[in-house]
Amino acid sequence: MIIDVRKNILIVGLGLLGGSYCQALKKYGFHIAAITRSQSSIDYALENNLIDEGSIEIDERMIGEADLVVFALYPHIFVEWIEKNQKYLKSGCLITDVTGVKSSIVYKIQDMLRDDVEFIAAHPMAGREVYGVQNAKASIFKEANYIVVPTEKNTQDAIDTCKELGLLLGFERISELSPEKHDEMIAFVSQLTHCIAVALMTCNDEENIERFTGDSFRDLTRIARINDLMWSELFVENKEQLLKQMDLFMDKFIEMRDQLRNDDIDGLRQTMRYSSERRALFDKK
Amino acid sequence: MIIDVRKNILIVGLGLLGGSYCQALKKYGFHIAAITRSQSSIDYALENNLIDEGSIEIDERMIGEADLVVFALYPHIFVEWIEKNQKYLKSGCLITDVTGVKSSIVYKIQDMLRDDVEFIAAHPMAGREVYGVQNAKASIFKEANYIVVPTEKNTQDAIDTCKELGLLLGFERISELSPEKHDEMIAFVSQLTHCIAVALMTCNDEENIERFTGDSFRDLTRIARINDLMWSELFVENKEQLLKQMDLFMDKFIEMRDQLRNDDIDGLRQTMRYSSERRALFDKK
Repeated sequence: MIIDVRKNILIVGLGLLGGSYCQALKKYGFHIAAITRSQSSIDYALENNLIDEGSIEIDERMIGEADLVVFALYPHIFVEWIEKNQKYLKSGCLITDVTGVKSSIVYKIQDMLRDDVEFIAAHPMAGREVYGVQNAKASIFKEANYIVVPTEKNTQDAIDTCKELGLLLGFERISELSPEKHDEMIAFVSQLTHCIAVALMTCNDEENIERFTGDSFRDLTRIARINDLMWSELFVENKEQLLKQMDLFMDKFIEMRDQLRNDDIDGLRQTMRYSSERRALFDKK
Repeated sequence: MIIDVRKNILIVGLGLLGGSYCQALKKYGFHIAAITRSQSSIDYALENNLIDEGSIEIDERMIGEADLVVFALYPHIFVEWIEKNQKYLKSGCLITDVTGVKSSIVYKIQDMLRDDVEFIAAHPMAGREVYGVQNAKASIFKEANYIVVPTEKNTQDAIDTCKELGLLLGFERISELSPEKHDEMIAFVSQLTHCIAVALMTCNDEENIERFTGDSFRDLTRIARINDLMWSELFVENKEQLLKQMDLFMDKFIEMRDQLRNDDIDGLRQTMRYSSERRALFDKK
């Protein structure tokens, strides 16, 4: 399936990401429907012309008409949804997602899915510290990365369509990773960073620290305001990889502590110079 | 001494901070002189009207005329400078600094200093990832914290003058801390954060990570581009406090790792909720 504006798109889960998908895709002329838990999200999306129709029910007609379904749900709710409602999906439709962990989800979904429906996993690496469709905006995709996560079960057609979706959404860079490699990478660049920010924010009970902070502390703890329900689930779903990355970080941190303890200034400076070199690669253009 | 625009100010060390002091103070009409290592810094500062005169030599006349001297040097160079050149200081002059560590410096300087000269320590908590007077700008002080760090040897007059200097420089918040409390605080909010950023940036040799990063990794490693000479010296000068803060962080990080390892989701969520609460206090207004 190559994406065609005559196609019907259904978004399941109308939060920050789901809503931003709607805003990005609406301008191309797709018919966009949404199913979500709260009526106020549907109302907001209708009023702001993000969707053409919406429901808080499992609307069989709406599901049955969709050519492309995007799931923007917590991992376990996504799995439950497929178990219960896949019977309503249109034969030949393509489904994709935005889930932040892959190995524990992708194979499970593909194994249980009907043969006439294909699931191609994707991870749009964009987010904000605020939630809900009310904060949705397509511009969050502008400088962000989009990762397509195929398995051996996926067709080239589905992979191509998923990449095209990333392009339409406006992502700067579109890559392809296996579920295992995705989870390893995400454990490092995203989950480990959240663990660090939370540990830093909670390790010292000193009061009034905000009177003495510079930008560095603010930067390192921006993501310490965290959705505990979502992130604890993502951590547990990617437990082995995250534990591995936490240990890698801890080894390096302990090495630096020992360098300091032993007055190994040369060692510290060498680590810092390597750090500066590595960081230079990461600057946004 | 209350600051008076007829006074002469001397900046020793014309880098990012020294130059930003000049730019902030020049507009009040002070006569500003600078002594620094490189002629190109003097030339730049003269051309851009940051200073009235400058020298790369230990200019006895220039030093002898200053009513207020600001040292913006690495800690050990500051100490050496005072040892060698304090004989040129004007009787009754006030000296202050911008050094990022205090206990190891303040008592040393105050003990060796002539009786007719007073040293009041200060820490302007502002900086950028770029260096040199060419990048100086007074606006870096705008939303930043300024800490005055007196000891029992300081007069109330010097403390007040130092606070007034912070006001003139344009700092948002001016506080007072003892050298010991300053070093404990700075070990946590500044030095620990730099250790964490460097460890994160160097703990995983994976290539092409920049293709898969979101903003969280970029934020946590912004300060991983680090001046190894300066920061290794600051770390070593504040070793005991920094080691203490590193251990506090590590204890919390290990606690989170164990919560994850043991599938203690309630524990993880509780830590995350506390983190979110603490972080809310830190948001810039």
